[in-house]
Amino acid sequence: MATETGKARVTFVPQDAVTSVPVGTTIFNAAAWIGLAIDSTCGARGTCGKCKVLVQNGVVPPITSADREALTEEELAAGWRLSCRATVESDAIVEVPRLMGNPKAALMGMGRHVVLAPAVHKVYMELSEPSLEDQRSDLERVLAAIQISKAKIEAHAGLNLWRTLPKTLRQADWKATAVVVDDELIAVEPGNTTDRIYGLACDIGTTTVVAMLMDLRSGAPLAVASNLNGQAVYGADVISRISYTMMEPDGLATLQTRVVETLNGLIHQITTRAGVPREHIYEVVLAGNATMQHLLLGIDPEPISVVPFIPALEKWATVKARSIGLIVHPEAPLSVFPCCGAYVGGDIVAGLVATGVAQEDTLRLFVDVGTNGEIAVGSARRTISTAAPAGPAFEGAQIRCGMRATTGAIESVHIEPDHIVLQTIGDAPPVGICGSGLIDIVAEMVRVGILDRSGRLLSREDAEATVGAFLAGRLTVLDGGLRAFVVAISEETGGEPVVLTQRDVRELQFAKAAIATGAFVLCRELGIEPHQIEEVLLAGSFGSYINPASARRIGLVPDIELSRIKAVGNSAGEGAKMALLSFRERAKVIALPERVEYYELSGRTDFNDAFVEQLPFPVLRSDG
Amino acid sequence: MATETGKARVTFVPQDAVTSVPVGTTIFNAAAWIGLAIDSTCGARGTCGKCKVLVQNGVVPPITSADREALTEEELAAGWRLSCRATVESDAIVEVPRLMGNPKAALMGMGRHVVLAPAVHKVYMELSEPSLEDQRSDLERVLAAIQISKAKIEAHAGLNLWRTLPKTLRQADWKATAVVVDDELIAVEPGNTTDRIYGLACDIGTTTVVAMLMDLRSGAPLAVASNLNGQAVYGADVISRISYTMMEPDGLATLQTRVVETLNGLIHQITTRAGVPREHIYEVVLAGNATMQHLLLGIDPEPISVVPFIPALEKWATVKARSIGLIVHPEAPLSVFPCCGAYVGGDIVAGLVATGVAQEDTLRLFVDVGTNGEIAVGSARRTISTAAPAGPAFEGAQIRCGMRATTGAIESVHIEPDHIVLQTIGDAPPVGICGSGLIDIVAEMVRVGILDRSGRLLSREDAEATVGAFLAGRLTVLDGGLRAFVVAISEETGGEPVVLTQRDVRELQFAKAAIATGAFVLCRELGIEPHQIEEVLLAGSFGSYINPASARRIGLVPDIELSRIKAVGNSAGEGAKMALLSFRERAKVIALPERVEYYELSGRTDFNDAFVEQLPFPVLRSDG
Repeated sequence: MATETGKARVTFVPQDAVTSVPVGTTIFNAAAWIGLAIDSTCGARGTCGKCKVLVQNGVVPPITSADREALTEEELAAGWRLSCRATVESDAIVEVPRLMGNPKAALMGMGRHVVLAPAVHKVYMELSEPSLEDQRSDLERVLAAIQISKAKIEAHAGLNLWRTLPKTLRQADWKATAVVVDDELIAVEPGNTTDRIYGLACDIGTTTVVAMLMDLRSGAPLAVASNLNGQAVYGADVISRISYTMMEPDGLATLQTRVVETLNGLIHQITTRAGVPREHIYEVVLAGNATMQHLLLGIDPEPISVVPFIPALEKWATVKARSIGLIVHPEAPLSVFPCCGAYVGGDIVAGLVATGVAQEDTLRLFVDVGTNGEIAVGSARRTISTAAPAGPAFEGAQIRCGMRATTGAIESVHIEPDHIVLQTIGDAPPVGICGSGLIDIVAEMVRVGILDRSGRLLSREDAEATVGAFLAGRLTVLDGGLRAFVVAISEETGGEPVVLTQRDVRELQFAKAAIATGAFVLCRELGIEPHQIEEVLLAGSFGSYINPASARRIGLVPDIELSRIKAVGNSAGEGAKMALLSFRERAKVIALPERVEYYELSGRTDFNDAFVEQLPFPVLRSDG
Repeated sequence: MATETGKARVTFVPQDAVTSVPVGTTIFNAAAWIGLAIDSTCGARGTCGKCKVLVQNGVVPPITSADREALTEEELAAGWRLSCRATVESDAIVEVPRLMGNPKAALMGMGRHVVLAPAVHKVYMELSEPSLEDQRSDLERVLAAIQISKAKIEAHAGLNLWRTLPKTLRQADWKATAVVVDDELIAVEPGNTTDRIYGLACDIGTTTVVAMLMDLRSGAPLAVASNLNGQAVYGADVISRISYTMMEPDGLATLQTRVVETLNGLIHQITTRAGVPREHIYEVVLAGNATMQHLLLGIDPEPISVVPFIPALEKWATVKARSIGLIVHPEAPLSVFPCCGAYVGGDIVAGLVATGVAQEDTLRLFVDVGTNGEIAVGSARRTISTAAPAGPAFEGAQIRCGMRATTGAIESVHIEPDHIVLQTIGDAPPVGICGSGLIDIVAEMVRVGILDRSGRLLSREDAEATVGAFLAGRLTVLDGGLRAFVVAISEETGGEPVVLTQRDVRELQFAKAAIATGAFVLCRELGIEPHQIEEVLLAGSFGSYINPASARRIGLVPDIELSRIKAVGNSAGEGAKMALLSFRERAKVIALPERVEYYELSGRTDFNDAFVEQLPFPVLRSDG
């Protein structure tokens, strides 16, 4: 009898919360998915016995051995089960006992209520000394102590612990602290160290790496630092990084070393600043796109870059942090996020979990704008993701006066009939145009009419009649007959003027059309119109700088109410923090790729048709 | 509801085999324990679905998710369960379907019928190439292929595999062989390599290390080699080895390195001889006493040597072979045996499994004679083990003319009224006396009456009257008035005569009494008399050389029929082979320490009383 592949509907009472989950999901995870906290101290490993629920209606799950340990015969007969062991096999109504006390929680991501329950546990032990009557081995003594502790953890240990255990226990006079991550006893520390439990959450961007030192007891970030990814000198985007590994014999090793150096540098910074010894970091959780995660682990990324775009691994994966050269506690595990596909990677999974997409009923469009635009559309009912090849325009590349978002980059623009208001990074004289500035300029040019809907720059003559002398005066023709608009004149720049050419506009159109097409295709799959989307979430650091009105104006995002277009900041980093701080959120992360369909755009002939339709700038409903 | 601590009785039909097992034991392991083979190809991991049994009577175990996968609703309702998942909770009658075909088996240990089912599996895969329609990651593709293969293995993999997988699969054109050990996918090899599966079984003795290269497909040993343990120069016995680690700053590292060097040397020898590349050894299983296993793993053994004698770990333990420096397949796991106690170690557990002690109804005494005599007495009903401090007499130390069992050592002696027949190792002129020779000499001296029952050497005057002139002439008095018996005269030795002194006799008496007392105390615990023992098994290489009649004569073993006193050779090595070749035997090994009670002799005041009674040489029933 094979497992059914369908979904089942679970109704939780008295909360009256409903969710549909794949058959085989545990009741505990089904509840976590919709933000319903069921009691648990053991990390849903079936040992603490606190997560019992009453299956009122539906197929009562079979009794597991964990059920027998935790529940009475009467409870079992009545239909009580441990929700972390019992799986949903058909529609059911499940009664959840009221939570005992208020679980410690923190607000993270986009208004996400995260119950603090990290995978790292410390248990202080005052062990009975061995005697001729009690000759248990050192390891059994410790494992038994943590098993009968409040946390009731069943753990195993490895060689390095075995090697140090006899001396540690005896020198500490049998008073020591067990450090358990998931089900591995990674350390036994002399004395009581339960007040020091730290973890590291990282967002490994192609450009920027962010490291966050988290206090796992309070959920508070103790220090945050970011730096340019040390791989950046080998290529600006993932494809050039992968090319480097293919062309240089030691390319993969070089890139692996560079990003680890970047991380170790950040770890040094944040631990020094917070006064926390590195070896008190017991777990590391990292989110990055698939290529970044492969390079970090030293895995050949080549097949990601060629049709049919295959990652070596796609699930939540854990190694020892030391095995890739990270300097934290020598036995600390390091985990990377699962992927939905080669180009909808761990950073997007992290972002989706941090924003509640695919978990809540709100119909959302999630976009991470970059060389590849990663897109997800949907709600708890159904969510689909894809990646659209936007090209480098948003990063300022292929744009005549384009530049990265550094000092002097025009990042925001407002065009009036008789003057242009520019804002530059660092309030420096304008040097060029970064991505957000580009979107702003083009949006403003469309708004005032210097650009028509098709993306054609007016000639100076046509412009004088419609937009007035000042703006018409900014239109020029460069060598080779290329039309251009002068954004900043020499007096402002102190050198060459900053211009936007007709070709630049076309580049931007291609970029925004790629992303808009991705969103459009996903909407079509869901059977909805783009304007029905209730919320647009702009993710990534770039997303924070985009002017929502401009994004809507150029058609990068659907034509919905402005207040519903939101920048969600570094949602990848937020997702990494959440998975570090709560096994409940981690369960969501692990389940997410099964919940979010991946739609491959490559090789779809209908993509081109849709793309052509997305090239012009739209008429907005507010344009009347 | 806590697990009950008692035992339950399982009757298997139609075989009508009965066993009592601790509550919580799987039905599969309960059957394996008494040599009843239930079908299984997945290593009792709940995936192959072949081990179904019908629980006819007793509490039908709860339905597990594995049951749901493998069995129909009708089967579940009728009481069919997968025996590898279903645990024994109360007395039950279990119907076992007839085996399909005859499982491949080998005769090993002491007539043990071992069903060939190693933890190492190879699965040849012809994978479908990835496409835009099938973008599963390389790892998921491989894991899915082995999951749907005949073996139905659910596995996981680690960093090193992830790193090599993309290139391997593509270079091999998607035709490759998965190597799985237990539930870890340790390698993917290009092409079909299913005809090459090897493993290594080792017996790590304090003196001698034996390495056996096994063909895991046929169960045949391909090559065997042995060598002196490289640690031997740092001390002859475990206590002097432990002292070395305590006195020398790098002592532990030195001893760890030496034994690994010894092993690597042996691996080189046997792989060269058999023409097998080292990297085709996919698993290593080692049995040694607790100190040897600790030193091999680099674990501080100090607490083993001092009251209350505590090992750092006592269960079946697995590490990567490379983590201790062994040169085999880089991802091969290495396991060491569990212990019953600090001085009843993995070698004894291996020996008990190889001989069937504690599994069969025959009441047996198992003795490994050495500096520590390891002793187990019992049957399937109940078995108890202990260690008795015999001292170094059996190794020839503390004996005036004692020596190790090398060329020229007197190993066997027969005394006639008018001459003495000596057998020496290598038929060389006698140089000294090794352990087996010592037992023989003393036994013969008791038999002919030169030694009285109390262990006193006759004076020459008394001897002349009772044993005649020739033997009386061999009695002498050394400096200080010490009586002695000349075993070999100067003419035979070509130098000094070989003598046995009164003090030597006392040393031997102390040694044999220690072991006899251990056996006596265990018999008393079991409520039996020593002569009720049905079989005596002499284990270890020394056991093979002891003359059973002499051992019985001096009271080292109980007074039972000679044909029932058997040398069982290197039973530790046999046990290691069995655990390597069959997961069924491995399950017995893992369960054995729970089935065999450990009796600590230290600190028992009644030990001394019993010891004094064991010092004299016994009157045998055959003496009439």
